[in-house]
Amino acid sequence: MGTTVERTQVGIVGAGPAGLFLAHMLHRQGIASVIVESRTREEIEGTIRAGVLEQWTVDLMNAMGLGDRMMREGHFHSGITLRFDRRSHHIDMAGLTGGKRVTVYAQHEVIKDLVAARLADGGDIRFGVSGTSLHGLDGDRPSIRYRRTPDGPEEELRCDFIAGCDGFHGPSRQAIPAALRTEYQKIYPFGWLGILCNAPPSHHELIYASHERGFSLLSTRSPEVQRLYIQCDPTDDIANWSDDRIWAELHTRLETVEGWSLKEGPIFQKGIIAMRSFVCDTMRHGRLFLAGDAAHIVPPTGAKGLNLAVADVLVLARALDAFYREGRSDGLDGYSATALRRIWKAERFSWYMTTMLHRTEEETPFERRIRQAELDYVTSSRAAATALAENYVGLAFD
Amino acid sequence: MGTTVERTQVGIVGAGPAGLFLAHMLHRQGIASVIVESRTREEIEGTIRAGVLEQWTVDLMNAMGLGDRMMREGHFHSGITLRFDRRSHHIDMAGLTGGKRVTVYAQHEVIKDLVAARLADGGDIRFGVSGTSLHGLDGDRPSIRYRRTPDGPEEELRCDFIAGCDGFHGPSRQAIPAALRTEYQKIYPFGWLGILCNAPPSHHELIYASHERGFSLLSTRSPEVQRLYIQCDPTDDIANWSDDRIWAELHTRLETVEGWSLKEGPIFQKGIIAMRSFVCDTMRHGRLFLAGDAAHIVPPTGAKGLNLAVADVLVLARALDAFYREGRSDGLDGYSATALRRIWKAERFSWYMTTMLHRTEEETPFERRIRQAELDYVTSSRAAATALAENYVGLAFD
Repeated sequence: MGTTVERTQVGIVGAGPAGLFLAHMLHRQGIASVIVESRTREEIEGTIRAGVLEQWTVDLMNAMGLGDRMMREGHFHSGITLRFDRRSHHIDMAGLTGGKRVTVYAQHEVIKDLVAARLADGGDIRFGVSGTSLHGLDGDRPSIRYRRTPDGPEEELRCDFIAGCDGFHGPSRQAIPAALRTEYQKIYPFGWLGILCNAPPSHHELIYASHERGFSLLSTRSPEVQRLYIQCDPTDDIANWSDDRIWAELHTRLETVEGWSLKEGPIFQKGIIAMRSFVCDTMRHGRLFLAGDAAHIVPPTGAKGLNLAVADVLVLARALDAFYREGRSDGLDGYSATALRRIWKAERFSWYMTTMLHRTEEETPFERRIRQAELDYVTSSRAAATALAENYVGLAFD
Repeated sequence: MGTTVERTQVGIVGAGPAGLFLAHMLHRQGIASVIVESRTREEIEGTIRAGVLEQWTVDLMNAMGLGDRMMREGHFHSGITLRFDRRSHHIDMAGLTGGKRVTVYAQHEVIKDLVAARLADGGDIRFGVSGTSLHGLDGDRPSIRYRRTPDGPEEELRCDFIAGCDGFHGPSRQAIPAALRTEYQKIYPFGWLGILCNAPPSHHELIYASHERGFSLLSTRSPEVQRLYIQCDPTDDIANWSDDRIWAELHTRLETVEGWSLKEGPIFQKGIIAMRSFVCDTMRHGRLFLAGDAAHIVPPTGAKGLNLAVADVLVLARALDAFYREGRSDGLDGYSATALRRIWKAERFSWYMTTMLHRTEEETPFERRIRQAELDYVTSSRAAATALAENYVGLAFD
């Protein structure tokens, strides 16, 4: 029995934000694509991730007709609060950036909207595939091989180009020979313990709290569901954290200013995530283009993860449009350098926010005071606050 | 033979920028002072140090009638140039900060002007003293003991207050019991090899060059004398650096853009300095108040050293004025905290500039890319450039 062979223009590995946004953009440009995804639709729509969208990401979703539910159910904040040294300081993002806002709308909700719209458009997303592998990347007929079920026959999707949008652990990055890529990495000596709880909002915007016991973040998911984080040992076992211990730590780290108190509620999910910065350079090998977490990871402190994935595929979609409509390959040739320039700025910002807000045992007393001076400076200088704000709500595209 | 005893209101240890500015400020407030200085007048007027003044320092010198020669002989720049990755980027300080400029006027020229004016005013500066020691700091009659000559009799200067302006190696900081002070320090793994040469200016403003072989700085002293620096091993021997080797290194690190070349000339002074960040907290013990390098050191990259010394004594002079005129001691009580807030901001900025511009063997590839992203960001964002500029030309006083 021969291998089933199909054809498409752009084969997309992975139905996360990068792959789904790319499929939508290509569709609008009249370019055919097929997405293969190893997880089920239920899994990708149920995985809790970040939830902050940059202004241009919101604008893009609306321009693509994908923003209706986001505009109804999302939360729109004019800024964030930095809390440290027993005082709170509001960073007025909208005021500092000409009206750009912070949109809180969970990543899995974005995923749901993009999947539904793609399927409604007749888009081809193959969930739950197994054994995905990439072939012929050096030539002009690359292909993706996979099985629809673990025991099913191997199928082949022949493409003009392949977009590797399969996350940090997917096969795409590994398909670039190790000698041809340089990987940059920083592992932070702390993690975040995150909870979801049924409680009313304690504050109308996000609070980033730097405390001598460590960082804490208060964010909202809905009028009934709150998301909170505590800096912790990344190797700690969540079993060590009873609900009582979690609340005690949150009260200590967040309730440092007069007249503000944290509202509690039943915790229905908790877990610990590690913190890492990672960049793969190059993001292109022959006809394979990496996008999103397949090529780079940021710690969540800067709220950049999803936005950076969308930025990548925006660059890639424009390059593919120029190729198919005008026969130009300069955009494809420049994809990696163009994407990486924005990525490194986002890596820098994420590293800056993470370094400024977290306490570590490794830091020297001098480094600790420099961190405190950063907080003092960014909350006393309009220029410094503007620099933070313009990164948080999203830098302009060059 | 009994000890000679004299009285003054404020005894000042050290005739550097901090001590001399303080004596002038106090004189204008009608407060008597005496300066004791271990070096000779020729030594303090001949020691080559930094040469960049913040705008408010220039304004203050002019307001105090000390700025005539500076305005005639100083160099006034609207900005600086950052050079990296084979491109030059001008930071338009004046445009970004509402007209504040970079003034290049060497520290020893400031010293000469302040000494001459102080002596013309009948001020009391005792140069070349030996064996300076501080006494009675806990009580209300502190004193400075010293000898006019190494073998002369000990003399005692009884004061209301003592200002310790005697630099990093002076006795004042050591007079604060070790248990009462916390010292913060960072030693950088590189130094600066500095030269003075007889050559015309190669550029009309300072150039800060970040190169894969290390940092280099081009600055001017006069139409005939140029000052240049090369990042080097701080433990290196200047004897290893022939003039030819120095010029070769400067050409390599600075001549990275088309159409620009470095002008050479005979080198008449060269030396290697180490790079350190240092802060002593507290800066006050009883009736002793530290100011300038006695309490803090910054690496020269941020051009903050002299300015920070003047900022300290401005706070101290105001506090002493309030004490003598209104009997209030709140300014004196708050001196250390007030001064340290500005100091830590300057330490942060100096650390930021130093870290961004220098290559080190210790840095990881990730850290190196973050440095490069800092340079890319600060030269592509008006907010980030403004943050750099406002620190360089001098933050406003709170």
